[in-house]
Amino acid sequence: MSLNQFGHLLRVTTWGESHGPAIGAVVDGCPPGLPLSEEDIQPWLDRRRPGRSRLTTQRQEADRVRILSGVFEGRTTGTPISLLIENTDQRSKDYGEIARRFRPGHADLTYHLKYGLRDYRGGGRSSARETAARVAAGGVARVLLAALAPGLRITGYMVQMGDRRIDRARFDPAEIERNDLWCPDPVAAAEWADYLEWLRRDDHNSVGAVIEVVAEGVPPGLGAPVYGKLDADLAAAFMGINAVKGVEIGAGFAAAALTGRDNADAIFRDPDGSLRFGSNHAGGILGGISTGQPVVVRFAVKPTSSILSPVPSVDLDGQPVEVVTKGRHDPCVGIRAVPVGEAMMALVLADHLLLDRGQTGGQRGRIG
Amino acid sequence: MSLNQFGHLLRVTTWGESHGPAIGAVVDGCPPGLPLSEEDIQPWLDRRRPGRSRLTTQRQEADRVRILSGVFEGRTTGTPISLLIENTDQRSKDYGEIARRFRPGHADLTYHLKYGLRDYRGGGRSSARETAARVAAGGVARVLLAALAPGLRITGYMVQMGDRRIDRARFDPAEIERNDLWCPDPVAAAEWADYLEWLRRDDHNSVGAVIEVVAEGVPPGLGAPVYGKLDADLAAAFMGINAVKGVEIGAGFAAAALTGRDNADAIFRDPDGSLRFGSNHAGGILGGISTGQPVVVRFAVKPTSSILSPVPSVDLDGQPVEVVTKGRHDPCVGIRAVPVGEAMMALVLADHLLLDRGQTGGQRGRIG
Amino acid sequence: MSLNQFGHLLRVTTWGESHGPAIGAVVDGCPPGLPLSEEDIQPWLDRRRPGRSRLTTQRQEADRVRILSGVFEGRTTGTPISLLIENTDQRSKDYGEIARRFRPGHADLTYHLKYGLRDYRGGGRSSARETAARVAAGGVARVLLAALAPGLRITGYMVQMGDRRIDRARFDPAEIERNDLWCPDPVAAAEWADYLEWLRRDDHNSVGAVIEVVAEGVPPGLGAPVYGKLDADLAAAFMGINAVKGVEIGAGFAAAALTGRDNADAIFRDPDGSLRFGSNHAGGILGGISTGQPVVVRFAVKPTSSILSPVPSVDLDGQPVEVVTKGRHDPCVGIRAVPVGEAMMALVLADHLLLDRGQTGGQRGRIG
Amino acid sequence: MSLNQFGHLLRVTTWGESHGPAIGAVVDGCPPGLPLSEEDIQPWLDRRRPGRSRLTTQRQEADRVRILSGVFEGRTTGTPISLLIENTDQRSKDYGEIARRFRPGHADLTYHLKYGLRDYRGGGRSSARETAARVAAGGVARVLLAALAPGLRITGYMVQMGDRRIDRARFDPAEIERNDLWCPDPVAAAEWADYLEWLRRDDHNSVGAVIEVVAEGVPPGLGAPVYGKLDADLAAAFMGINAVKGVEIGAGFAAAALTGRDNADAIFRDPDGSLRFGSNHAGGILGGISTGQPVVVRFAVKPTSSILSPVPSVDLDGQPVEVVTKGRHDPCVGIRAVPVGEAMMALVLADHLLLDRGQTGGQRGRIG
Repeated sequence: MSLNQFGHLLRVTTWGESHGPAIGAVVDGCPPGLPLSEEDIQPWLDRRRPGRSRLTTQRQEADRVRILSGVFEGRTTGTPISLLIENTDQRSKDYGEIARRFRPGHADLTYHLKYGLRDYRGGGRSSARETAARVAAGGVARVLLAALAPGLRITGYMVQMGDRRIDRARFDPAEIERNDLWCPDPVAAAEWADYLEWLRRDDHNSVGAVIEVVAEGVPPGLGAPVYGKLDADLAAAFMGINAVKGVEIGAGFAAAALTGRDNADAIFRDPDGSLRFGSNHAGGILGGISTGQPVVVRFAVKPTSSILSPVPSVDLDGQPVEVVTKGRHDPCVGIRAVPVGEAMMALVLADHLLLDRGQTGGQRGRIG
Repeated sequence: MSLNQFGHLLRVTTWGESHGPAIGAVVDGCPPGLPLSEEDIQPWLDRRRPGRSRLTTQRQEADRVRILSGVFEGRTTGTPISLLIENTDQRSKDYGEIARRFRPGHADLTYHLKYGLRDYRGGGRSSARETAARVAAGGVARVLLAALAPGLRITGYMVQMGDRRIDRARFDPAEIERNDLWCPDPVAAAEWADYLEWLRRDDHNSVGAVIEVVAEGVPPGLGAPVYGKLDADLAAAFMGINAVKGVEIGAGFAAAALTGRDNADAIFRDPDGSLRFGSNHAGGILGGISTGQPVVVRFAVKPTSSILSPVPSVDLDGQPVEVVTKGRHDPCVGIRAVPVGEAMMALVLADHLLLDRGQTGGQRGRIG
Repeated sequence: MSLNQFGHLLRVTTWGESHGPAIGAVVDGCPPGLPLSEEDIQPWLDRRRPGRSRLTTQRQEADRVRILSGVFEGRTTGTPISLLIENTDQRSKDYGEIARRFRPGHADLTYHLKYGLRDYRGGGRSSARETAARVAAGGVARVLLAALAPGLRITGYMVQMGDRRIDRARFDPAEIERNDLWCPDPVAAAEWADYLEWLRRDDHNSVGAVIEVVAEGVPPGLGAPVYGKLDADLAAAFMGINAVKGVEIGAGFAAAALTGRDNADAIFRDPDGSLRFGSNHAGGILGGISTGQPVVVRFAVKPTSSILSPVPSVDLDGQPVEVVTKGRHDPCVGIRAVPVGEAMMALVLADHLLLDRGQTGGQRGRIG
Repeated sequence: MSLNQFGHLLRVTTWGESHGPAIGAVVDGCPPGLPLSEEDIQPWLDRRRPGRSRLTTQRQEADRVRILSGVFEGRTTGTPISLLIENTDQRSKDYGEIARRFRPGHADLTYHLKYGLRDYRGGGRSSARETAARVAAGGVARVLLAALAPGLRITGYMVQMGDRRIDRARFDPAEIERNDLWCPDPVAAAEWADYLEWLRRDDHNSVGAVIEVVAEGVPPGLGAPVYGKLDADLAAAFMGINAVKGVEIGAGFAAAALTGRDNADAIFRDPDGSLRFGSNHAGGILGGISTGQPVVVRFAVKPTSSILSPVPSVDLDGQPVEVVTKGRHDPCVGIRAVPVGEAMMALVLADHLLLDRGQTGGQRGRIG
């Protein structure tokens, strides 16, 4: 992991700004012989695309991905896969006003301090638009996982919006795809939609969210002590998503409130020889290595700082100003973070599958 | 970051098992000419040392660090600094019983599954003992920070033990060093001590904790989009500590419950030209880059799985067993995680200082 | 360095196949604020472009580079710079015949063995075309060097073609740009041109070459013990160019024949305080670190394996065949390797400048 | 590869100075379950040890290696292997005189320029002593290769000393271990020994050498385009050895003098289905990937700069001095570079075996 790259063996480099000609990703280290075409990637981008509903930014982007290398006659060749997405709807004039002002809670300030200049159009590199490149790369990771870990299934959904939480008793996986909020609780989904609509239109405000991403069917043995830990890499991957301020695995922060007896995931062995656990406080990871249980990650997304309400700030000359962000913004960027979180999960697991295969050959210790 | 290494320019490799002859760290990339001796590192190890009070494991380790390379006539030479700590108090017989059993909630199982064998003595590589190597490396990072970011100060403390939280109204920095729990709230400290004593002696149980680490005086401009983000690297560093299940920056998970208006950290400029913020929900990091405000990280430590209470599990033959962990264990490993968290903060900041200097020369954009 | 990437802080990832839609490079870690436009890069690509003279392949490529990210209002922003070059002249039918045959001395065989499939069109990823991406990235490195090491000047030229060597007594730097062979010896240049013409047209053959690349004005102190040595990184960079079979620094292999007395570069100090050396057998590098003398690298390019003369080989079915490579090929790929070698020198030096600045702050030890 | 580390998946970090308490290496990423003890490593160190004959330095080092981690009950555990070698024979007073003088052709000067200080005792980190750590790490790599590539065999030997070359017609592999010079030509061995004796005792001089290292039984498919090329990594590994000034693969620089017809290695298929080649100009590598033929590397070692003959130089004050290096030095450091070259070959091949297994699973494309 270094600047704009991450991954050990499956290494992803993303590039591009919100209002440049294009954004993209280069996926290096992909195994050869995997079936891959743009049709394998596009659906994931479509899930994340802005303008999908009235609850997300009204920016319209086709987000058509092109594969420029690394695939021949429908199969990966083992060489780098270059993915390119053109930026088509760039209304730069919307942003002119903030060229000289720093939006509180935004990367405007820190980019300026560090680099001495910034591409202020649409947030430049700090735009949520960058995540499209991750989702595209995640599409490659999914193809890899389908081949090397066939039963693996990744599902992301919102579990909290603002201070409203889902009711786990009403959790319905089928519901996730039915609403615009990736919410597994139909009652919450309806209520949140109304709330968001009010927030955006009337309150000129935004709100945070918590997203949960679960990977089922993860083979045991992925990860490594001590700094190549699966949970450490997941933490970096999720914390690296724009606007994320917290990441937890399994019971997460709630584990701090538990005693060792309550937190222990008892281990049983089924008649067929497979392991079964009494609970999954560990979130599928012990000692940095996957157990075979579902890997469970939750991450907190802050409310976007781009709101129509005025906030005190300064301009380039150091003069006090009130910043009001016009333009097309998400009232809850957490919604579009769901497919991004799924993509990061896919990328980290795919990378660790290769890493584990490299070191151990994929062999597993036996029990019984 | 790769397996047992982390850091970009200041790269740390740790090695060693709980009951091998020694553990250690190699710190590569340290600037030359810094004053460094074992006396600069030893105090940090002493803070973390087991057997320091009745509230931590009774294992007695001298934890004397030796510098084997990279220092000449009291100054760093720019070459790798090898740090070695001998293991002196290894009661291997305590652990014989778990050689063939998997402790629930412990890396026993995953090491076996991944590697097909494990050094079961004291948890081997997954022992909290590994963190001594990090603390030693952190001592080097502190010397680096003292030279390159003179005003920088790192403070760690416990803010929650089990379901008991400190009262922020009673927060007293001077209290942190006065009790055995690094607790800034004297009332909580006394109560927690009693609770822990009961937990260990009578309840044969353990408990989790939340630790907060704050770095004040961090220069703005550290970090980088998109995967070399300061917060992403902090997340990996803290999640990589044994038993950690959650990491958050600034307002963290609480930010999910806020609106954009409430979360916004207003920006002001003082007459002397310095920036001032109305609040620090961001935890000192925006867009992956430090703002100059205090960097605030909290992490959740689960209750240790090594308890005297029986938990169902299996043995190497797959037979059901009840596991009771004898030996000398911490009732709350969160206590000793405080100096470890401080060390990780020091290492990440030192690394990013060098990284930033490499890319930008340390120059900062001007305001006003 | 990992698969299709190289560099420590200035990290370059290249991608693309000879007959895909495009090739490109992503340059990560570039300092912000440098003036950069496509006009800074294009001239270097033009130097390397095929079809430049009758002595290189007749493939016609416009080789127009586009900057897709990382530059705003004519200055680098510190974010990744994505460079894209479209492939415009792809006569795929020329290559149909070798889809099932392995050209001796070519990556055909090893790509097939490793990956189980290959993009056989024009050599796919193993095509010399990939080097255009390096030359483009090298253009970015040159801008960086111009800013951070103003006096630095890189010059590449051929010193040997086949068994014909230049006469160093006739060395004329101005001659290098005057002929199509980057040959500093005008007599050799004329003779080599005739030889090449005969080789291609009448002999249906190809020939190897030795190229020398010299960097003058390199600041002392670049490089590091022990594996981040400047010479080790140069060796990897040059050996990684297609068809290169040998790399040497300074006196190189000739140093093996010298005694210590003859090889010693005596050190003097001029009245102005600068160091002066009696000779430069070291090629500007001692202990992996630059001395301030010119850095001198030579590399050997084998004759291309794509020749019109038949060579025994096998096909996919394992049947014996005689391979004759039609299509448009360079009789001496060494010619076009000159600008590539210059680019690799620029990239390695730029990377080490940043790396040194990160670790040492660019300060230098004093003498006198 | 970064500063004092190299390798992708099998990553080696070395540390230590000539006259510090010890030197060592940490080998990270080793597969678990391999039989490993100090007895597997010691013999390789013994081959390299100084004081082995009158033809090498008279410094006496026991060079006893200790394994401090990563091995349990005689098997690797998959965690980092820490190797430590104590320095026992440190006659620091021999070096006092050069504390303030720069030996021409030595890292004295560049270390001072870069770092502002240096451990001048015995060359500090730039001492040939560092290579003991590589040889120890190479011992681990050999155990890995024995398990994963059973038929693989690595042999190093000298092919040139000064301007004297071996006669390939007299090449006798059995001879290599019989003389103190690793020379496969018995006639040359005898003559070189006399020459060296004279050089050291009477001429107070030193001489360079060329070493060839051959790996037979290398599986095809190791390596990767474009910067993870097997030959690029070998070039870095060998050029990173102290005093090496040139590296070539297969025909190497001689390939530059060949035509494509002469250089082509014709491919045949034997009745048993295996590939056979008409020659091995490629040195076992095409397109950066191994062919299955022997991998052949040659490297040039310059004459050591530590000679008893005076050479003009300067001191710390910039005053002109004549430097005469007393102490115990090798008249031909190339001799002890033979086991070091073998170790680097083992390390690079072992690393690429794991890397290939990670990406491709070790599957190979079929022919016929």
